[in-house]
Order: sequence, then structure tokens, then C-alpha cells
Amino acid sequence: MPIDLRSDNTLGASPEIVDAVTRAADGALSPYGNDEITERVRARCREIFETDADVVPVITGTAGNSLAIASMTPSWGAVFCHTDAHIQRDELGAPEFFTGGAKLIPVAGADGKLNASALEDSMQDVLGTGRMAAGACVSLTQATEAGTVYSVEETAAVCAAAHAWGAGVHVDGARFANALVRLGCSPAAATWRAGVDALVFGATKNGAMGAELLVVFRKELTAEIARRAHRSGHRLSKMRFLAAQFDAYLTDELWLRNARRANEAAARLERGLRAIDRVEILRPVEANILFVRLRPDSLARLRAAGHQFYDWEIFGAGAVRLVTGFNTDLADVDAFLQAVRATA
Amino acid sequence: MPIDLRSDNTLGASPEIVDAVTRAADGALSPYGNDEITERVRARCREIFETDADVVPVITGTAGNSLAIASMTPSWGAVFCHTDAHIQRDELGAPEFFTGGAKLIPVAGADGKLNASALEDSMQDVLGTGRMAAGACVSLTQATEAGTVYSVEETAAVCAAAHAWGAGVHVDGARFANALVRLGCSPAAATWRAGVDALVFGATKNGAMGAELLVVFRKELTAEIARRAHRSGHRLSKMRFLAAQFDAYLTDELWLRNARRANEAAARLERGLRAIDRVEILRPVEANILFVRLRPDSLARLRAAGHQFYDWEIFGAGAVRLVTGFNTDLADVDAFLQAVRATA
Amino acid sequence: MPIDLRSDNTLGASPEIVDAVTRAADGALSPYGNDEITERVRARCREIFETDADVVPVITGTAGNSLAIASMTPSWGAVFCHTDAHIQRDELGAPEFFTGGAKLIPVAGADGKLNASALEDSMQDVLGTGRMAAGACVSLTQATEAGTVYSVEETAAVCAAAHAWGAGVHVDGARFANALVRLGCSPAAATWRAGVDALVFGATKNGAMGAELLVVFRKELTAEIARRAHRSGHRLSKMRFLAAQFDAYLTDELWLRNARRANEAAARLERGLRAIDRVEILRPVEANILFVRLRPDSLARLRAAGHQFYDWEIFGAGAVRLVTGFNTDLADVDAFLQAVRATA
Amino acid sequence: MPIDLRSDNTLGASPEIVDAVTRAADGALSPYGNDEITERVRARCREIFETDADVVPVITGTAGNSLAIASMTPSWGAVFCHTDAHIQRDELGAPEFFTGGAKLIPVAGADGKLNASALEDSMQDVLGTGRMAAGACVSLTQATEAGTVYSVEETAAVCAAAHAWGAGVHVDGARFANALVRLGCSPAAATWRAGVDALVFGATKNGAMGAELLVVFRKELTAEIARRAHRSGHRLSKMRFLAAQFDAYLTDELWLRNARRANEAAARLERGLRAIDRVEILRPVEANILFVRLRPDSLARLRAAGHQFYDWEIFGAGAVRLVTGFNTDLADVDAFLQAVRATA
Repeated sequence: MPIDLRSDNTLGASPEIVDAVTRAADGALSPYGNDEITERVRARCREIFETDADVVPVITGTAGNSLAIASMTPSWGAVFCHTDAHIQRDELGAPEFFTGGAKLIPVAGADGKLNASALEDSMQDVLGTGRMAAGACVSLTQATEAGTVYSVEETAAVCAAAHAWGAGVHVDGARFANALVRLGCSPAAATWRAGVDALVFGATKNGAMGAELLVVFRKELTAEIARRAHRSGHRLSKMRFLAAQFDAYLTDELWLRNARRANEAAARLERGLRAIDRVEILRPVEANILFVRLRPDSLARLRAAGHQFYDWEIFGAGAVRLVTGFNTDLADVDAFLQAVRATA
Repeated sequence: MPIDLRSDNTLGASPEIVDAVTRAADGALSPYGNDEITERVRARCREIFETDADVVPVITGTAGNSLAIASMTPSWGAVFCHTDAHIQRDELGAPEFFTGGAKLIPVAGADGKLNASALEDSMQDVLGTGRMAAGACVSLTQATEAGTVYSVEETAAVCAAAHAWGAGVHVDGARFANALVRLGCSPAAATWRAGVDALVFGATKNGAMGAELLVVFRKELTAEIARRAHRSGHRLSKMRFLAAQFDAYLTDELWLRNARRANEAAARLERGLRAIDRVEILRPVEANILFVRLRPDSLARLRAAGHQFYDWEIFGAGAVRLVTGFNTDLADVDAFLQAVRATA
Repeated sequence: MPIDLRSDNTLGASPEIVDAVTRAADGALSPYGNDEITERVRARCREIFETDADVVPVITGTAGNSLAIASMTPSWGAVFCHTDAHIQRDELGAPEFFTGGAKLIPVAGADGKLNASALEDSMQDVLGTGRMAAGACVSLTQATEAGTVYSVEETAAVCAAAHAWGAGVHVDGARFANALVRLGCSPAAATWRAGVDALVFGATKNGAMGAELLVVFRKELTAEIARRAHRSGHRLSKMRFLAAQFDAYLTDELWLRNARRANEAAARLERGLRAIDRVEILRPVEANILFVRLRPDSLARLRAAGHQFYDWEIFGAGAVRLVTGFNTDLADVDAFLQAVRATA
Repeated sequence: MPIDLRSDNTLGASPEIVDAVTRAADGALSPYGNDEITERVRARCREIFETDADVVPVITGTAGNSLAIASMTPSWGAVFCHTDAHIQRDELGAPEFFTGGAKLIPVAGADGKLNASALEDSMQDVLGTGRMAAGACVSLTQATEAGTVYSVEETAAVCAAAHAWGAGVHVDGARFANALVRLGCSPAAATWRAGVDALVFGATKNGAMGAELLVVFRKELTAEIARRAHRSGHRLSKMRFLAAQFDAYLTDELWLRNARRANEAAARLERGLRAIDRVEILRPVEANILFVRLRPDSLARLRAAGHQFYDWEIFGAGAVRLVTGFNTDLADVDAFLQAVRATA
């Protein structure tokens, strides 16, 4: 069967999550997150992160990112992020909207990562000279848009650079589970212990229907986040249906199991593609995304056969992106590899 | 069993909707609403409203209201609404946020309704004297916050007053189904034929998990709404799960059946309460909400027995609100009435 | 000669102020307020207000009001003000713009004044029920839009009500000098000693070319005000020319002398008009503004003779507003009174 | 005497402008720009630009820039500008504030100029891929921050690139007079005939006290600009005092005479410095700004002697900026050159 490698958001939902949502449909519960399911998610999240964090369920990553960033950045502040960050390239100015016009400062860096030293230079240039004012924030993406993963040390270095300027640190964790599986460390080590102030813990791309969890380690930000969520239409009356998704997601390590499978499929793809001449792997494959270059003729024939993937020209002419997911079939991967071999 | 009359948002979800969401979980689909389920909802909506409207699914009524209002109102414009409107009292300034600071102009009116003549006076006062500038909008709630329903003629009169000043008309239809059941007219008659430009067609309070449909009759507003939805975090990648809810909601008239049951339960409550001395019905009961005044002692005893409802002091000391829903059990209603009789 | 009673902003500028501006034109000075003239104004202001206040010169009252209000009110907060306040009726949503969408809550009150008890009720209604959230502010106008003056006790009562909810207090002092002349108390007594947090100390309407001073008693607000002034285009490079106006204004009590003359002209007008049958004085005359009702025929004949004044229909049909200024000629006043007598 | 070359905003005001302001102080005039002086400026401006443009006087360049940009750019739009543009580096996010969060897209270019081809690439990257949406604008600075001047052909090429994407063109003309003197063409040729939609015509840096004129060639933008000016505190009641400055500025070519003198002083500086070994001129000198590199020891001794200028490290270590103005004394220039020679 042809494979869909367009994005982890084209896939459906994990059965465990569907079941949890189904179960949540019964009976009356207090609205707006004052229900027992949301409470359970809060408790579970504190366990998993080994700290007394606040959690705010939201429906999209854009919402979570913007709420976190706006709670750390006044309208006259700056948001430092990688040149390729989703918040900079794909959210149509969401952080600018939520902050009332803060300025995003893109910082270049190899393999999709903010590099502490380049970040320091940029902060010096922007904050040191008063171009934008105090109250900045730094946003990093884990796993990155390039499919790479910040090591704990790299995260800590970025956080230290940020904190030296009094800036908060936000992590866009749309693929946090995929990163964590790669890192093999604890959630705490990858986040607050390294200096992260707020994490958008994504589930949508990893088997949920539509659910992200804003995990607030710096709890004094939570009241403002809640108010911003309310007035931006992100305070759900039947919050239970968002919470139920996380309830299942965080049970029996579903989140890690799903991510592991996606990462394994990506690794299998990589191994297979590396063995094929005339296929170029463009970025280190560390999570569930590959960037590769194939011959135009090969691309055309793969697409003609029904395989789906997106062009990714910002990584060069002929570049395409291949994304695996929580339910990618390894047999489909092998069939795709076979097709690539046949057309390369 | 004690009854929960707090709100129609404390209830669960209709089995038909749960089933549709479950079915939607399978297989890969294009993201961001470019999927067949969303397409089907669009088509169905056009049939039901007998016009070529655009539809934008959103997760909350606040989001739908704000997006519609912002697409009609520049930041220097005014939004005319009833004093008790949800957008004025309960959304923590959401319309102000989405518009970039437009001014809400509350207009008093009996039974929760904007009255065309009071509206005209207010528009003259605000727009005629240049307090706020052209590009205004009028927002009405159907059914109203007082549990009443605008007749088609009343809606048309408000729309005519609005259009005379070049203002668009938005309907907050969180309980649109309940209103329509009461009116007995076609959806078209209650909306665009009467002059409505955009409707937030609520499902959340009537059996969905969390789903509202922004129905845009003035289609030139849609592009802007889509952009605002994107940058406010309301563009869902797995839109299918919102759409699936509406797919079921609009199939076999589930929306009307649910609303009919809620309205019937409210009517039964009203009949029962009217027969009890010392119970005062404070507003006409036309949809699924009642406002009543009971003796303090009676309220305390009902609550002690586990019955749940909210105080509603803006309608006077001792006032409470009783809301029925799509799955309110008529036996529970009768038991509640029995309890009121015993304590009144 | 016919008299111009339209507004105190139609008049020119005091010679002392023109001279100061002329003198300021010579020589190089550091920009952006880091000059000796601005420094002198700061020092003088601290003397006059008997406290270590910060001062931020701005070009308009709308700018000063909005900057002060935005520094005290988050976007989810509320701004309580009188129904007739300039910020509510005449600034096209400036406070909403600067705050990012806070909500103005108009509170009715006799003679243009916020009344502490009505304010408390409104704050309870809005803040006590969570309609808008903490971080509110109260704005009062001194002298009021109705030409009346808050006594020190009235100001203190409003401030106490505000502070009880953690709200800051802003005074729109476009006619602060006129109020102070009426009160006969010290500037300190009328402001920070009564609980005021920030004052917009107007000079434009009292003989300046265009100059207002934001006097910040709660100095922790100043840094934010400065940033907001910068990004709203209110940080003047040649600040010296604003400062020079205040330098003259605050020298030899020019501000009080100008206001005294305006108030005296208003008092003379009042005395004269009270002696004429068929002329109705509509509000207490306490500063430099009168609201009167004349017969339509009389109004028409006065205007035909070249006298100028504005209709003020929000105070009733046939109402007009008469405003005197720092250079109103008493002979012109007498001539106007004579004309009224002749036409009444 | 030591010379002040810090900026053209440290200088005072032209006597002709002071006289005009003094004359404007007499008599009553209608407020808010409905006066004869403002009307005269409008007429003169139309003559000078040979077209029926609208004019809106404002107090700062930041205000003019932001108002023009916001009238052309929705909150989801992009503002393309040079990396070094004042709007990007020096206004603390003013365009973001006025637009409600549009995104500035810095584009690199030699000698401070946007280059049509680099602009096209950037517009393709941002607009062609949907990163930001339609309604963009392009902003260029004339003379540039690097002291260079766009030729008419260069301006036209940038405008053509902008218009090809439906984007408007704004010119930050803080030093427009200096540029025009260099170009030697008509104001019309340098602006609307080349495709410019709105110009901020600066006077503050060229002898005014504080006055910029927003010249709107695309007149359908004016109504929105006026509303934004009102709600951002930039609608002056005594507009006459702004207008009077332009009245003098545009009389007998004062604006050109002042700019000519500043440019001549810069040219004299350049000639003198080029003759000195170990002095490096870093950018073409085309208006009234020079960027030069001197030995650290020389800089220190010049400063010790009282000469003033700013470091400009973004143009390299040891770089300083020298700015001449409308009243720079040529004898002071010569003395400064003498001092450089003595210390180089």
C-alpha cells in the first residue's frame, strides 16, 4: 500500500485515546477544567515531571506556544527563536498577536537548533543595545523542525544564555515525546532541570485527536496564561474531552510507546535510504522526520504510485520531508523503500 | 436522583457524536480542514441553510464570536450588544482582544433582547456623534442569555437597524438549535433571510464534545476569518475531529432532536413550577433556560439534597438559573419538582 | 467683538510660553529628554507636588491618559470611569488600543463625577464576579467634563474604593489647574495625598501650544510608561520644546494665573446669565465651563452675531457649552452677556 | 569650538520656524487641523508634490511611519524593510504595536538600501509560501540609515517589486530633504511618480522643533490613518503649532536650503577626512551622515577636546557616525578636521 509520509498530523488517533474520549462522554461534570479527569491529568503530569507544575490543556500547539510566550514577553519585548521555528514560519504571526506586537528575532543555527553562542550574540545585539526591552523570551523546538533533538546539555546552555538576560524559556514540544525517546532521559531532566520555564507538551502529532498540554514550571505565570486562554477562546467548557486524551496518553506510557514506534519507523527508513545510491540524507535523523533529496524523476514516480510527502525547498532544491507517526506500518515503510530503490 | 441544572455545558455528549468521532479516528486524512468529513459538513450546512455559506469549525463559542465580530469591526469600531450578552459579561474581553480594542456598547432591553429602537438610539449616540467610527457591528444572542427567543421579525428589525448604519450582524447561536425549535421556522428564515451576516452555530451545549460552526453568510468575510483563526490558535490540524461532531449533529436532525428534548424538559419544569405557590418565574421560558425565585430556605434544602443550579443575582436577590439539556431525564425533572413542592 | 467660547483648545498660547519655546531653539542639546530643560521641569514638578514623582512630557492628553491607564491595566482588566469621561466618549478607543483591549466600564454619577458608592457597586459587579480580572484601574477627570470639581474628600473616597480592589487611580487633569484654583488646596493634597497614582497635568487647554505632563506618583510604573511612549510614537527627539512649555508654565505660577483668569471669566459669565430670565444654568459652575440652555431663537441670533459655542445635546435639547480660557477678555464676556440679554 | 556631530536631532530650530510658531500663538482658531494654517500647508504640499495628496501632521517620525504602515498592513501581514531600518531597530516595536502584530521582515542590502532583487526573493519566501498573508507593505528609508540615497530608478524598482505582490510602499523620509537635494529631482519624481504610496516627510531633523508630515498619495488610506492617529494620541487639538512649522519649512524653500547646508557640511567633512591617512570612510557620503573609522587613540583625544559623536559598532569596531545639520557651522567643521589631522 502507498504510504502517507506528509505529516504526523494527517494520521488518526490511538484506540486508547478514542476509548478514553468515549468513556468521558457519560455523565455530568463541572465545566472549564474543574472536573476529575483534568485533575487526574494534573496529578499524573506532576508525577511524570517530578515537580509541582501547573497544566493548562489547549487544543493546538499554536495556542499553547502563544500563551506561554505571551506570559513571558511584554509587547515591547523580543522572542528569540530559530530561523526555521514554527512560531516564526508557520503560525501567521500568532506570537505577535498574543503579545500585542513583540518582535520575533530569528537566529540561525545548524540542524535546526538554537546555538547558545549565536543566541548570546543576538541577545546582546537586540537587548544590549535597547532595540527591544527587558522581558524577552527564548523559544526552542524539541524535537526541532529539522528532525533533530537538543541534548540535555544543549538545552541547558540555551536556558543559561536566556536566563543571563532575564529571559524566560519556552519549549515548543509538538514532538516532545519523540525527542524524549531519543534522549532516553527523564522528562524532568529534559525540561525544568535544564532551565525550561514552560513546555507545550504535544499529543496531537503523536496519536491524540487534538490535545496539547501547556506545562508551566514557573507557576507564577499560570494566572496570566489562564486569563489569556479565556479571552482568546481557548478555555473549553467541556474540558474533559481534552483532558481524557491526555489521561490515556499518559497512562501505561502510551505517549512513549507511540513515539518509539514513530522513531523506529524513521530509523528504518533512514537505514534503508542510506543503502541506496543517489539518495541523500540532508539532516541527522534523530526523531521521526527525515529530509532527503531524491532525483526528480524518482520523486515523480513515487508520487505516481500514490506515496505522499511534501517538498521542502528551504532545505534545497529537490528536498522532501518524510514524517513517520505513531501508527506507521513498518511493512508500508519497506514497500516504500522498495519503491525508492526501484526508481532511484 | 438529584438533577444537575447548572448548565448545558456540564453534560456529556450524544452517543451519535461519540460514534462519529470514533469512526473519524481511522486512516490518514489531509489536515487543516481539507478532508472529506469537513467537506461533507460544509455541504450539509449549505443544504440546511439553503444558501452558499462558508463554514469554519471552531472549538469554542468565544472563538467563533470573536472571529466573526473581528471580521466585521475595525479596532476603532463599536460592537453593539445586549447588556447581558456573553461577549460583554463572560468572555474576559475576547472581542476587544480579537478586534485590537473595539468598544462594546451595551444596550439594555427587556427579556435579554436587543430592541431595534433602543439599538437605533445607541447607534445614533455612538456613531452619529463620532464617538466610535464606521465599521461597527451588532451582536445578538439566539436564544438569549435570559432564555428567550427573538422572533424572525425581531431579528429582522435588529438587522435592519444595524444595516442602516452599515453595521454587520453577528448571532451568538450557542443555543441556536433551542431557539429554532421554539421558532419552528427554517434556519434560513431565522438567519440570513432576516439579515444575519454570520452565525456561530453552537453544538457544544447541545450534545457535542466541543464544536461550534462559524457559518459565514457574507462570504467576503471568510478569508479574514481564516487568517484570524490561524493566528489565534484556532486552526486545527486534525480538523476532522471537530467536523465529525457536526457531521453527526446535522445527520437525521440530531441537533433538532436534542434541542427539542431540552426545551421540553424546560417546559415541563416551567409547568410544574408555575403550579407551586411561592415560586416565581422571572423570565419567559422559551428555550431551555428558566430563571426562578425560590425562598432561601427552599434553595438550601434542594442543594442539601444534591440538586445543582447556579445563583443568578443579576436577575434579583434569590434568583437562580435552571438549565436543561439534550439528555435531561424527565423523571429527574419530576423528582426535582416534587422536591421543590416539598420545600417551597 | 464676538467671543469664542467653543473650547479652551481654540485659543492660542501664553506669551511666556512662546518666549520659552523661542529661547529653547538655540544650541545643541541631548535628545529624548536628556536635556537640562526637561531636567528643570522634573525638579520643579517635584517641588510643586512635594514628592519624588517621575514626569513624562507628552503631546496630547489622549496620549497621557492612555499611557497612564495602560501601565496600570492589563489587557484583561477593566477601566472604571464616568459615563461622560473623555476617555470613554472622545478618544476613539485610545485606552482600548494602548491596553490591548481592556474594557471601559462607564459609571453614572451626578454632575460628571464618579461617586465612590456607585463605583464600589460597579467594581463588585465587574471584578467581584470575574467579568474582568484583577489589575483594574479607575480614571477620574479633574475638573470634570461637566465643569465641576472633585473635592479633596471626594477624590480620596474614589481612590479608597479603587485601592480596595487593588486598582490604580488615574486623573485626567486636562483642566487640573482650573480645578486646583477652585479647590485652593495644594497640588499634593489634590493628588497623591488623596491616593492618586498618576496624573495627566494638562497645559494645552491653559495656555500652552501642546504639552501635557504625565506625573507618575507610583514610580514603579514609569519604566513601562516610557516603553509604551516609545513604541506609540510619543518619545520626542527634541523634547526640549515640550519641556520649555512646562518650564514657563510652572514659573511664577503662570499655570495658576492662567487658570484663575479662565475661572473668573466663567464666574462672571455665570453671574451675568443667572440674572437673565429664560436662561437656565444646567450644571454647577466650578471651573471654566458652563452648560446653559437658551431659547433656540436666542442661540440663532447670538451665532448670527458671530459668537461661537458648541451644542451639548447629551445634557438635553437646547443645551450649549460655554468655555472660557486663559486669555478670555472680560470685555468680550460683558458684550456677550449684553447680547444674551438682548435676545433672551 | 568643539562640534556636536551626534545627530541632527540635537540641534535647535530654524529662526523662520520659531517665528512662524510665535505668530501662530495669536488668536482663536478651530482645533484638530481645521484651521487656516494647516489648510495652507495642505495646499503648499500639493503644489510641491504636484498632486492631490492628503497630509496629516504628526509629532514624530515613529508616529508617521507606524500610521502609514498600519494603514497598509493588516495584523497578519508582513512589513519588508532593510535590516538596519529605523522601524526595525529603533522604534521598540512601534509598527508591530500599530498593526496589531504584523511581522517585520528584514532584508539585507548594501549601503543601507533595499535591493529590488533581494526584496523579490524575500517576498517570494514569505508571501509565496503563505508564511504571512496578503496585505503586505514595503518600507524604505530615504536618505537611508547608512547616509546613502536611493536613486529614482532604485526607488522605482523597489516599488515595482512591492506592487507586484500587491504591497504598498512607505517611505521613511526623516531625511527626505537631504535626499532630494542630493538627487536634484522633483519631489514628485522621487515619490509618487516612482510608485510611493505614502511618505513621512521629516522636518524635525532639518530645523523644525518637532514636526513630520504624513503625505498620503494613495488617498483612500487617509480616513484610516486619521482614525489611527486619533486613538494613538496623535490628533493634536492645537494643530496650528505643528502646521506653522511646516508653513515656514515649505516657504521660500527653507527645507531645501537647510538640507543643502547640512549636505555641504558633510561633503566638506568627507573631503577633509579623505585627505587624512588612517581615516577610513565606511559608506558612500550622499546626504548629511558619514560613517568613518578612526584610531581609538584619535577618538579618545577628539572626545577629550569636547567633540561629540556616536560609536556605530554595527558598521564594525571603531566605527563612528558623524551627522551634520541645518545649522552646522563650517568653521566648526574645519576646526574638527584640524583636530582629526592633529590626532590621526
